[in-house]
Amino acid sequence: MSETLYSAQSRPLLVVISGPSGVGKDTVLQRMKERQLPFHFVVTATTRAPREGEVHGRDYFFVSTDEFAALIESDELLEYAHVYNDYKGIPKQQVREALASGQDVIMRLDVQGAAKIRQLTGGGAALIFLTTTSEEELVDRLRARKTETPEGLNLRIATARKELERLKEFDYCVVNHDMSLDDTVDKIIAIIESEHSRVSPRVVNL
Amino acid sequence: MSETLYSAQSRPLLVVISGPSGVGKDTVLQRMKERQLPFHFVVTATTRAPREGEVHGRDYFFVSTDEFAALIESDELLEYAHVYNDYKGIPKQQVREALASGQDVIMRLDVQGAAKIRQLTGGGAALIFLTTTSEEELVDRLRARKTETPEGLNLRIATARKELERLKEFDYCVVNHDMSLDDTVDKIIAIIESEHSRVSPRVVNL
Repeated sequence: MSETLYSAQSRPLLVVISGPSGVGKDTVLQRMKERQLPFHFVVTATTRAPREGEVHGRDYFFVSTDEFAALIESDELLEYAHVYNDYKGIPKQQVREALASGQDVIMRLDVQGAAKIRQLTGGGAALIFLTTTSEEELVDRLRARKTETPEGLNLRIATARKELERLKEFDYCVVNHDMSLDDTVDKIIAIIESEHSRVSPRVVNL
Repeated sequence: MSETLYSAQSRPLLVVISGPSGVGKDTVLQRMKERQLPFHFVVTATTRAPREGEVHGRDYFFVSTDEFAALIESDELLEYAHVYNDYKGIPKQQVREALASGQDVIMRLDVQGAAKIRQLTGGGAALIFLTTTSEEELVDRLRARKTETPEGLNLRIATARKELERLKEFDYCVVNHDMSLDDTVDKIIAIIESEHSRVSPRVVNL
């Protein structure tokens, strides 16, 4: 009995952190990294060129289009997307290795990507949906970014509204209040700890 | 969308803390109370006489056999058991009131009692199973109590072994290490926090 129990509790967990555009996924991930938690944060592979200050292997794996195509062909991407003119995706091998080393793996994905992981793993990953206290707050945050044309902004707002409706496809929902990033991170940590106490742990095979 | 979300996250939770005889349920509850957590700890009704130092309403509700019978007849006990020559049970009204006031409710029950709550609420309560690192450790702890005859001890060990097998009926399992009571309490708190982040919250109707 105790052996069954222990293999369950020591099984590393795959965690997806998602939520609508504008909710603050990157900021939350950034704070998690600053707190030096013992997790493996997935590094995405991308075909786009590095921006100033970005480090290969830390911010992204910068790969050529050919290399990316090879990853797709060998089915070595957990998930990928065509964003603007570039591709980005999550290398399976990286996730496999981190899980094999016993680390919990944290991935940041948009809502569509999270849904794909859910299909692929059949409930084997814990899916966390970040949200705001209200739809209005989300719209306000998108407006405050001021990085887009009015048309671009309207598209983004419409997309974010649609994304909010997909909450039901997730396991957990955490409200990311504007002024309490650490509360958000604490809640995510509690979810991960609690998942390790489940009698029926999630199983992921990649 | 945000209204649905908020009614879910503010819904108070019914938590059952259980586990085999000897695992340290009372000690864990005691430490939780010392930490002044914002939970309602259920006070059991019993027909036995108060022991020295026990306070009515704090340690137990001391009721007469007639009063207890009336609670059974009016279906006002969530769960009850005949222990030695006395009855003890959990008054529904107390749990209803605490939940209605918005508090999470913590109940300490033996494994049989926890299984009854599971049946009664149909998954509406979060069931936590406390265990030891091994079956041997549990047996050692029972032996160390030295409050029983050899026959009584053997019966208790056999019961505890059977109880360990019922882990699968629970939602969560927390190992209560001998020297780390606060770790156990922290894990229980993480489970409760995490339950409040569930997209599909548990619903309990009493």
